[in-house]
Amino acid sequence: MSQLHFTSEDWKVSEDRYWITFFNSISGPRSVVMIGTQDQEGVGNIGLFNSLVHLGANPPLLAFILRPTTVPRHTYQNILSSGCYTIQHGTVDLLSKVHQTSAKYDTKQDEFEEIGFEKSYIEGFQAPFIQGVPISLAMEFREEHTVKSNNTRLIVGEVKHVFVNERLIDQDGCVDTSKADTLLVSGLDAYHRHDRIKRMKYARP
Amino acid sequence: MSQLHFTSEDWKVSEDRYWITFFNSISGPRSVVMIGTQDQEGVGNIGLFNSLVHLGANPPLLAFILRPTTVPRHTYQNILSSGCYTIQHGTVDLLSKVHQTSAKYDTKQDEFEEIGFEKSYIEGFQAPFIQGVPISLAMEFREEHTVKSNNTRLIVGEVKHVFVNERLIDQDGCVDTSKADTLLVSGLDAYHRHDRIKRMKYARP
Repeated sequence: MSQLHFTSEDWKVSEDRYWITFFNSISGPRSVVMIGTQDQEGVGNIGLFNSLVHLGANPPLLAFILRPTTVPRHTYQNILSSGCYTIQHGTVDLLSKVHQTSAKYDTKQDEFEEIGFEKSYIEGFQAPFIQGVPISLAMEFREEHTVKSNNTRLIVGEVKHVFVNERLIDQDGCVDTSKADTLLVSGLDAYHRHDRIKRMKYARP
Repeated sequence: MSQLHFTSEDWKVSEDRYWITFFNSISGPRSVVMIGTQDQEGVGNIGLFNSLVHLGANPPLLAFILRPTTVPRHTYQNILSSGCYTIQHGTVDLLSKVHQTSAKYDTKQDEFEEIGFEKSYIEGFQAPFIQGVPISLAMEFREEHTVKSNNTRLIVGEVKHVFVNERLIDQDGCVDTSKADTLLVSGLDAYHRHDRIKRMKYARP
């Protein structure tokens, strides 16, 4: 098999679409999550994100990247106005519905209803949950940072509630998402499943 | 199976170690990459990161999270002093060596030599590559942001070179890492393999 070598000379002259797909996927698959929000009129929104990263456990913080030009702004506006959002893993058996949350619906359309997800709430928390998924987080917005190089935003939130199936948790607290068949995505449309190989011991020199 | 509900009441009173592992893994597996750098004396360093995210394709930007208290600072110092680094995917057949790059070696120890990776260079680029891995990126440092909530840093870089096996690239530019058996990790030690389910069509309302 042949090893190709690409440089900016290649992606500056060739067609845009190829390189957008290429760079979207070269960093490999990541877990794909649905971010649920609600506007002040009660209209629910679901955005699909594959940029969720762990920032720290104490306090429990997660961040994701918001790309202003390609992702609907509903998620961002609702997070700013309500201060909260839900994060829920997609699963293999829900693949079609999960992918459908990436569609750009009109502001007035409730995406839970349009896509056919049952909505649920918990007391004192404005953002809606999708019923029937194995891992759900309730998040409070903490801070945001704008990347000057291309105007993407890092959105940082703190975990306030976790709902998770008991059977997914190892004895030491490690959550085994492979038991719930949660989805990964590479780029915008290449979905993957994952299997645990093994857990490794803490590495020492 | 029973759905558990955890709140800050739980993680404030219980032992730290359990919740560190829990929150490290709840966001699901992500691709794990080795970041290669070199200091001004020519000593090579490899850091293991699972927080790589795509920021944009034009210019091609990737970011990762640097956690000051848990990750050795060598990677960060070398990036600041040299302005560059390499990003290379781990693969299933190299699992032991890949995980070993997470060990904290002394500054004077060359991690490529200690771990047994063959080092290679390209002209005009100070950061070293590991030979024999299927996807390699040469990065130039662009900017950093410090998250106030817990002092983690977002490190942003621009892709300058890509080396990738031809057979991994779909006709439209999508890179299928599952064909190269690249590794994913959940938390710090739970390694996974991935299989492509399918690519989906662009979703419309």
